[in-house]
Amino acid sequence: MSKNPIDFLFNPASVAVVGASPEAGKLSGIIMESIKKGGFKGSIFPVNPKYDSINGLKCYPAISAIESEVHLAVFAVPARPAVGLLKEAVGKIKCAIIISGGFGEINEAGKSFEKDLKDIVRRFGIRVVGPNCLGVFDTSSGLDTFFIPHERLKRPPKGPLSIISQSGSFAVTAMDEMAREGIGVARIVSYGNRVDVNESDCLEFLADDPATGVVALYLESIEDGRRFIEAAKRCTAKKPVLAVKVGKMDAGASAALSHTGAMTGRYEVYRAAFKKSGVTEVSGYEELIEGCRALSLQRPSRGNRVMIITDGGGMGVNIADAASAAGLVVQPLDESIREELSGSFPPFFVASNPMDLTGSVTDELYAEALEKAMSKDFYDLAIVAALWGPPGLTDGLVQLLSEKSAMSGKPVVVCSPGGSFARERDALFKKWGIPVYTTPEATVRAASVLTRIGSTRETQPDNG
Amino acid sequence: MSKNPIDFLFNPASVAVVGASPEAGKLSGIIMESIKKGGFKGSIFPVNPKYDSINGLKCYPAISAIESEVHLAVFAVPARPAVGLLKEAVGKIKCAIIISGGFGEINEAGKSFEKDLKDIVRRFGIRVVGPNCLGVFDTSSGLDTFFIPHERLKRPPKGPLSIISQSGSFAVTAMDEMAREGIGVARIVSYGNRVDVNESDCLEFLADDPATGVVALYLESIEDGRRFIEAAKRCTAKKPVLAVKVGKMDAGASAALSHTGAMTGRYEVYRAAFKKSGVTEVSGYEELIEGCRALSLQRPSRGNRVMIITDGGGMGVNIADAASAAGLVVQPLDESIREELSGSFPPFFVASNPMDLTGSVTDELYAEALEKAMSKDFYDLAIVAALWGPPGLTDGLVQLLSEKSAMSGKPVVVCSPGGSFARERDALFKKWGIPVYTTPEATVRAASVLTRIGSTRETQPDNG
Repeated sequence: MSKNPIDFLFNPASVAVVGASPEAGKLSGIIMESIKKGGFKGSIFPVNPKYDSINGLKCYPAISAIESEVHLAVFAVPARPAVGLLKEAVGKIKCAIIISGGFGEINEAGKSFEKDLKDIVRRFGIRVVGPNCLGVFDTSSGLDTFFIPHERLKRPPKGPLSIISQSGSFAVTAMDEMAREGIGVARIVSYGNRVDVNESDCLEFLADDPATGVVALYLESIEDGRRFIEAAKRCTAKKPVLAVKVGKMDAGASAALSHTGAMTGRYEVYRAAFKKSGVTEVSGYEELIEGCRALSLQRPSRGNRVMIITDGGGMGVNIADAASAAGLVVQPLDESIREELSGSFPPFFVASNPMDLTGSVTDELYAEALEKAMSKDFYDLAIVAALWGPPGLTDGLVQLLSEKSAMSGKPVVVCSPGGSFARERDALFKKWGIPVYTTPEATVRAASVLTRIGSTRETQPDNG
Repeated sequence: MSKNPIDFLFNPASVAVVGASPEAGKLSGIIMESIKKGGFKGSIFPVNPKYDSINGLKCYPAISAIESEVHLAVFAVPARPAVGLLKEAVGKIKCAIIISGGFGEINEAGKSFEKDLKDIVRRFGIRVVGPNCLGVFDTSSGLDTFFIPHERLKRPPKGPLSIISQSGSFAVTAMDEMAREGIGVARIVSYGNRVDVNESDCLEFLADDPATGVVALYLESIEDGRRFIEAAKRCTAKKPVLAVKVGKMDAGASAALSHTGAMTGRYEVYRAAFKKSGVTEVSGYEELIEGCRALSLQRPSRGNRVMIITDGGGMGVNIADAASAAGLVVQPLDESIREELSGSFPPFFVASNPMDLTGSVTDELYAEALEKAMSKDFYDLAIVAALWGPPGLTDGLVQLLSEKSAMSGKPVVVCSPGGSFARERDALFKKWGIPVYTTPEATVRAASVLTRIGSTRETQPDNG
């Protein structure tokens, strides 16, 4: 039977919560609360034969008892009853999210339940997310099926980043981090054991989704390599796609196996698939977060030639080392730029790459160095390592760097390491749209992600 | 002529500040302020023919005019007069710190001034730190010659870590970070252009220094390879020594050259020297900070077999990948431990390595898993990736992890990624002596540093 479109997962007109509970501490109680707090505008139908109403909403003994159409049913009941209840809902619902664990990830009985779910999907075309997942968080529709309360998991603001994750914990942690950083999110899907809706389905949907400008993927495995490449290609033609592949090493691979019951396959095959489809692979959680922060504030880089400007020589050398190791090109300062700078700069400034403006630097000299170094076609992006010791540096530096970055049309990432004085300036960088990092290495990772994304964009038709 | 001991640099009975100024904004004014705020107990003699007194202290027209002995003179005057004034001070002072830049790092004239300094050292045995440096910060004597005000650079508390750095900015930034983290520091030396006192002198001094328990080195170059190996060996026989070598790559190397005017030499030679002398090399600023945090709270690891315990499967796989890539061994859970755990753990827990305690975890189950996994000789250190979503986790978890770590005699490092709920728990980990990191990768780097330090300790006589 032909499958329903998965649009209903993100923007359903109505949601049934099967196993709904009025108890705030229970999983299903938290889901009810999440949906409510998310500002979901559609109808909500709690389903539980034990109650007549839950939190002021009429409660139904079964999905079949709901009078109107139900686009999406969220199942928060144990594995065995979840299978039976899904079957009963056939014909009544378009899509389902099965939050419950206790399936293929734990034992043979669970595997058999999973097989039953697959049968239902195949026979009736119902689209199923899960089981063993958190489901969907959507800032357009307000749908939020995540069963972790707001107190422990902040919800990020609306924005262009969408996350597709096999792992619930990965999705949740990244989401919480995005919320803290104020990085805007469009949609998050945690799909767990993947009896039906998989990474390729989501990529196809997000490719055409106007709310999504960037996609981040967390993969333990890929279900269908060819389809993934096609779906990823469609997506990367329109927007950057970042991917974390875990289970690279033997240890990680065997852990991934027990985690969602899927074989991870050989890592090299994944790398080839990413390359072929224009997906930017990042090394893990850390680089994903750092890369998303950079991408949320700056454009991808058109090349890998990096200019390093600092007022602390040692940090500059550390950054140059890390940049070279990451495949960025730290080419010497062109003589023409050196000459331009020599007019206004005192003799002890090191007009080189890295450029060391020394402790005598001022906001204006920093800005001038950045402007002149980036004005011609010698460098594609700049790393500024701003150490706050020099008395000539004020909060005004951040706005100047932001303006010069915008003027150059090239991305700038900042390394601002140190203690409380530096940390108190983080908000200022955020305000002015400059991604800031606390170590040379993190800054270089972010610059590298912007460069790698940029290199995939150049080969794509919709390069912008 | 035989050289004076460098003890006077750290614990002088008296300090002259040449070029002292009452102006708080001037470099020499900040140095006066730093020495005062550091709680230095010895005599302070401002030297400047322009003033009769500075901040209530009698000011001398020249060092020769000071009636009593002067152990240390700090020079905060331009390069040319610094040379002349140092020569005039011969016979009156034991040691000097020449803060001023304008020497070999900028031009030929500066190189010639540096040569003059070296001549004075050779002929008269005066020990000189610098030029182009910040000098000494010492929590035992209270000496603090750093010219960055407290407002921009917090001073760390007293503790066992000593830092030797060619780069002033590196020393300052690390120090500020230590202050924010509450990591205790013994002595910090920024030696800049190194006309005399070098990394080997400092290592020899710190080897026998009871206040120093750990040494961190930032090196652009080493002056005398053989002597370095001997000095480092003496030091590592008694305490861990971490080293960052920058200028590894061509780009970094040429930047280091212009930074302190020294050739960096081939990186492979440095690696061999570190290995030979039992120095633990760290990759850069980031790993140094992460490693120092771990070492300030936990013991080095006796081996590289790591147990990963988490309540978020995806993070566990990510950590297993990163750990394998870093050379840690993620060996499967022994059957005997699995059996012990099976009694108290529900069936959906994944008793493996990584061990996934799932969202149903409680503080007590976490503690039990850690205790049992680490009780026998299967693992040398544990990485706990605590995600705070599960309702069964409370602040009590941190104390339990700390107790189980102490009981096992093995180090535990924690990954606590995410948003505000996680960040609010950082202080709790610090309180209970557990090093905490915000990404899987950072946690693995810290675990790797503890392991690499441990592996050098085993080959040393004073293994403790």
